[in-house]
Amino acid sequence: MIHQEYIYELPMKVRDYECDFQGIVNNSVYQNYLEHTRHEFIMTRNVNIMELHNRGIDVVVARIDIAYKSPLHGGDEFLSKLYISKEGLRYVFFQDIYRKADNALCIKARVDCVALVNGKLKNCDELDKTFF
Amino acid sequence: MIHQEYIYELPMKVRDYECDFQGIVNNSVYQNYLEHTRHEFIMTRNVNIMELHNRGIDVVVARIDIAYKSPLHGGDEFLSKLYISKEGLRYVFFQDIYRKADNALCIKARVDCVALVNGKLKNCDELDKTFF
Amino acid sequence: MIHQEYIYELPMKVRDYECDFQGIVNNSVYQNYLEHTRHEFIMTRNVNIMELHNRGIDVVVARIDIAYKSPLHGGDEFLSKLYISKEGLRYVFFQDIYRKADNALCIKARVDCVALVNGKLKNCDELDKTFF
Amino acid sequence: MIHQEYIYELPMKVRDYECDFQGIVNNSVYQNYLEHTRHEFIMTRNVNIMELHNRGIDVVVARIDIAYKSPLHGGDEFLSKLYISKEGLRYVFFQDIYRKADNALCIKARVDCVALVNGKLKNCDELDKTFF
Repeated sequence: MIHQEYIYELPMKVRDYECDFQGIVNNSVYQNYLEHTRHEFIMTRNVNIMELHNRGIDVVVARIDIAYKSPLHGGDEFLSKLYISKEGLRYVFFQDIYRKADNALCIKARVDCVALVNGKLKNCDELDKTFF
Repeated sequence: MIHQEYIYELPMKVRDYECDFQGIVNNSVYQNYLEHTRHEFIMTRNVNIMELHNRGIDVVVARIDIAYKSPLHGGDEFLSKLYISKEGLRYVFFQDIYRKADNALCIKARVDCVALVNGKLKNCDELDKTFF
Repeated sequence: MIHQEYIYELPMKVRDYECDFQGIVNNSVYQNYLEHTRHEFIMTRNVNIMELHNRGIDVVVARIDIAYKSPLHGGDEFLSKLYISKEGLRYVFFQDIYRKADNALCIKARVDCVALVNGKLKNCDELDKTFF
Repeated sequence: MIHQEYIYELPMKVRDYECDFQGIVNNSVYQNYLEHTRHEFIMTRNVNIMELHNRGIDVVVARIDIAYKSPLHGGDEFLSKLYISKEGLRYVFFQDIYRKADNALCIKARVDCVALVNGKLKNCDELDKTFF
């Protein structure tokens, strides 16, 4: 299998309030990181998710699969990277997060999104042009 | 395949601050619901996750897979249900959320957890007795 | 000064993910509790905050003042209580949270809200009738 | 009264998941911004809040007073600024947030913190040296 290359990466830093009683980033917070990364990526294509929403186009997560490899701690800097492929109606975001200090893989995620146009599952040319 | 029965269910209700700009519960919040359900379930077995942590035993999520079926809205009441199986060192929580009003399946999740005893991946008799 | 009586109380329970690395509920989370309590209170008056929003009426927090008295821990049950007064255009919610186990006062808050009708600060008869 | 000058400012950006159903940053999220700003400020003094905690020193919020002036929206860039004074045992953080696009004041906050040393309210020389 040929390894596909990341097309976008976002540098981020853990905020202490994102850590739970175990002193590490709470599992659910990684979904916040992943969503923010997708939205920032989409902004680089001059598309604004909230503005799309106001026009009746929603990019909705249909499935998410996250493998937790190594936890992030308060103050850790990290890189959130992604690449995309299309499978049928699904935009599949492959999103990985690496700790900056040692380049350790923290999570490996696959996020399947679909477009809802006025609430209906549809192919969306505008998104196709945005992502590819 | 024989359908396994839920062994625990927790009634919950969406809080408006959990909804995002799309007016529906943000995807990451379901992980909060799932975690809270696991912890409440474990409490019914007289085990406290935070007390375990203080004794060096952490139940850690290794992988999570969530299929989003139907969104919850502000104020919706729902039932968060689970059953467990063990696969090797993994405690696998099958966790589904149903909207109360129409019994619609909202998410279908599989959460693989492992025990870390003093930071080391180990089989943990205490957890075996707790869960089964 | 005559002590005003609470007109509403909501029983709640700390969820472990709401605790931060200090093992206590993070300060910001109490605002979530307070907001949820206000919205639940308003629901008892058959008014839905999200439905009001869709009709152009927003109840917006203008100021919040919280005194933190005693921290809540994971799993703690508590009562979130409130009473209201009106000062000019402001609906002032006095909101206090008590730990259930020992009736200790956890936070004492004053939340000043105003009505925005189609984005304009206004007196709102509908809210007056709802709250008083 | 002589206006005191800010001694620290942190550039930040709204993440879409921080916005609620009204399409603006939820009130509670500003407390996250304020906490993160304090911790980042303290880091510039080579002190780490989580490391202090492990040595038995906790900086705890005793009171918070936030005036909400102008809401932040998804994607907005902003500057989170602060200065400090000491009043008795209290470290008082004056923290204001300005939208970057138009320099509008978004919130004006006063956060009273105290030091707990091994759980006891105390003056803490180490923090005095850190903050002043």
